[in-house]
Amino acid sequence: MPKPTPLSGFPELLPAQRVVEREVVAALSRVFELHGFANIETRVVEPLDVLAKGGEIDKEIYVLQRLQAGPDQTAADATLGMHFDLTVPFSRYVLENAGHLEFPFRRFQVQPAWRGERPQEGRYRQFTQADIDIVGRDELGFHHDVEVVRVMVEALGALPLPPLTFCVNNRKLIQGFYRGLGIEDVTTAIRVIDKLDKLPADVVAAQLVEQAGATAEQAQRCLELATIRVADTSFVERVRALGVTDELLETGLAELAAVVEGCADLVSDRVSVEVDLRIARGLDYYTGTVLEIFMAGYERLKSVGGGGRYDALASDGRTTYPGVGVSFGVSRTLLPLMADGVLAGSRPVPSAVLVALTDEESRPGAQRVATAMRARGIACEVAPTAAKFGKQIRFAERRGIPYVWFLPRPAAADTRDPDGADPAAEPIEPTHEVKDIRSGEQVAADPATWTPPTEDLRARVVGLETLAGARSSTTGAHASTNDTETP
Amino acid sequence: MPKPTPLSGFPELLPAQRVVEREVVAALSRVFELHGFANIETRVVEPLDVLAKGGEIDKEIYVLQRLQAGPDQTAADATLGMHFDLTVPFSRYVLENAGHLEFPFRRFQVQPAWRGERPQEGRYRQFTQADIDIVGRDELGFHHDVEVVRVMVEALGALPLPPLTFCVNNRKLIQGFYRGLGIEDVTTAIRVIDKLDKLPADVVAAQLVEQAGATAEQAQRCLELATIRVADTSFVERVRALGVTDELLETGLAELAAVVEGCADLVSDRVSVEVDLRIARGLDYYTGTVLEIFMAGYERLKSVGGGGRYDALASDGRTTYPGVGVSFGVSRTLLPLMADGVLAGSRPVPSAVLVALTDEESRPGAQRVATAMRARGIACEVAPTAAKFGKQIRFAERRGIPYVWFLPRPAAADTRDPDGADPAAEPIEPTHEVKDIRSGEQVAADPATWTPPTEDLRARVVGLETLAGARSSTTGAHASTNDTETP
Repeated sequence: MPKPTPLSGFPELLPAQRVVEREVVAALSRVFELHGFANIETRVVEPLDVLAKGGEIDKEIYVLQRLQAGPDQTAADATLGMHFDLTVPFSRYVLENAGHLEFPFRRFQVQPAWRGERPQEGRYRQFTQADIDIVGRDELGFHHDVEVVRVMVEALGALPLPPLTFCVNNRKLIQGFYRGLGIEDVTTAIRVIDKLDKLPADVVAAQLVEQAGATAEQAQRCLELATIRVADTSFVERVRALGVTDELLETGLAELAAVVEGCADLVSDRVSVEVDLRIARGLDYYTGTVLEIFMAGYERLKSVGGGGRYDALASDGRTTYPGVGVSFGVSRTLLPLMADGVLAGSRPVPSAVLVALTDEESRPGAQRVATAMRARGIACEVAPTAAKFGKQIRFAERRGIPYVWFLPRPAAADTRDPDGADPAAEPIEPTHEVKDIRSGEQVAADPATWTPPTEDLRARVVGLETLAGARSSTTGAHASTNDTETP
Repeated sequence: MPKPTPLSGFPELLPAQRVVEREVVAALSRVFELHGFANIETRVVEPLDVLAKGGEIDKEIYVLQRLQAGPDQTAADATLGMHFDLTVPFSRYVLENAGHLEFPFRRFQVQPAWRGERPQEGRYRQFTQADIDIVGRDELGFHHDVEVVRVMVEALGALPLPPLTFCVNNRKLIQGFYRGLGIEDVTTAIRVIDKLDKLPADVVAAQLVEQAGATAEQAQRCLELATIRVADTSFVERVRALGVTDELLETGLAELAAVVEGCADLVSDRVSVEVDLRIARGLDYYTGTVLEIFMAGYERLKSVGGGGRYDALASDGRTTYPGVGVSFGVSRTLLPLMADGVLAGSRPVPSAVLVALTDEESRPGAQRVATAMRARGIACEVAPTAAKFGKQIRFAERRGIPYVWFLPRPAAADTRDPDGADPAAEPIEPTHEVKDIRSGEQVAADPATWTPPTEDLRARVVGLETLAGARSSTTGAHASTNDTETP
């Protein structure tokens, strides 16, 4: 096979980058589980009638065909498409398994999805998402809106990402305001206002008049509403000052205030929660809380996550399943950060220790040392060949393995005078030794008890500041390992 | 949407079953990492010319098509297929990224693969595999054959599965034996012998004569070789007793003996390693060690894993990458075991504790209790509504949550005489209490220090014996929770 080239839109990670993705997913999963969210995975395919609803997304759906239709080819084969998000398969899963689930059902799901769209930074044809949702049967208390936002704030706030902002709004607030204002086509008005990040305000105002049947005065008030952006509950008074009264508006104001207040204790340098009355989210199924997540310095990615409340996530005609959830774009966030060097894996291998070989005969002894360390949770590998020690150390260095272990040198014992007659000869006790190849420090060590410092135990995610520090110290290590030919 | 029905060949797991799959994958990953294997994932699609090589598998390949070809449709879109194993994409990944990898490169990969084959027990259209491989550049020491088998023996031996047998052979041994015997078409002979588990011995012998150009005498000796099955190195003498001499045969005997001896210390009640000279594995690319893994009581699944040595896993014409690896069928093994009730998840939710609500006003206090426990790694959730305590306890029971937490009852304080004048009244200190809903035992507890027993902390895998025990104790819990309306 000639050297393959990457496929546009289907990014793959090198081992050290994969450390970042795995650790981020593990950290998110830990928080989700502490809050009682159960993990599920759905098959990657859905019947086309579940996926294709006549919307914009349809033309991006990948459909499965068998390469050679044989006698095993079933009609079902021809009507399967790959899911383009995790919400559609999840709602199908809830309907299909409702009899086996307890409601409210909290689940998290971390899987790839596929869209045949034009690849660009943050937009891929295969990309991984991490979703949390809470779904009720027939009813779902509003407090779950606060809960699900809190959980995602807590989970993302624990990651070494640039500062994130959760921009929150409420569909009832917008709809109630428009209705109270007297706008006839509220749905269209929401869709038009949603273009405010792409179009100038006067164009949006004109479209409100043309498409949603608003007067110029009404359009102006819609824009005033959409410009309100605050980090506390002061938005309530500012909205009331616009002079619109409506019952649904009041409910929306109260719900949105509850979300902001409910998250206040989690706000930090890393994550803030702001009311942004411009956020509408185009998708028709949102009915209350809506939110989008933005990352400082990465506004060009648009949102890195989002979600909200849907009073009818799924329905089989008899029973309706309301839900509220937040989705985080794992690939969309991590790939640009890794490309920019903001995040990296500390090393491409799990091994903390390379056990060096004195000669090929020392392999069984080296394996016993490795086994003793593994029994205590220390990842290690034995050198592939009994090359010169300097070569073995450079092998470890290229792999980012911080420690090299040396077995006792049997030759050392032979240099002793068997009668002990030479008083000048120091009695040499053969011992194991371990070298930190970054500092060059080498000390005697016992394979049954020696443990590396916690920060060296596992490959881990290093963020921007840590990366800068690590770079200079690695440079130092490179310079200092030239004189370490022998242990 | 009407209630959806499952798609044949695309199994999905309920939350408690997913606990089993996740814990098994986590346990395997831990062992792989302790041995220095780095995790990677590959995109799920490959160019068709990488996948389709004119073999039997071709007709099972799923090809991607865009639902509606738009201006974004590229030529590449039309030529992508979904991978049917993890070896083909891994060898492509090695070629593509060779400049960024350090060799020997140890990797593990746990991902689904897709085959459009007829679904049956243990055979699915989407199924998850866990693969480990070690790949060298130009050369790869034989000791890695021993290493990779040892790692998989250790990893699978730690799982609560029925007893497993690793049946090991060596292609050099078979090829050398056939060559020394004077059989002309060695490749065909291997392919014919591989049918011994499907066809009677005399039919195989006849095919050796007809298809591989063997004499009846040669065919007989091939069958004699194939019937040798021992758990130690005694096979060496038994093969030599067949009177065939060949250099390649000697190499194969020595390598196979090294694998069996090298794994001897890991053999247990749960995993054994046996020499089975019938194992050939049809795939052409194996060149040395070959193995298949069988599970006691599940012989109908055929092998649940397998692998071996391939001296040219990948090649770009200039550089060749030899490899050795073992693949374990996660779905093929776990789905039948779960269907049979041999394995199950201990509960469908991560939560160890449900914090009960006295009334809706107690929710903030309940959340503080939950936060205090989560800070100490205890997964918990707050009751969705302030229903009667009995209903809240049954809610926990249905979800398999073992503990229910009760906040101090403010009403209790009110019953005390403010002057302490009533000597008969016990001074009541309002305290938190926690109930084990299986035993009914309820004790005072401090949210800052109380911890459940380790076995209750996380949802975990329970095996056959444990399951039987849990069933009877759960029945007891059901009976005893009827009289727990109030804490």
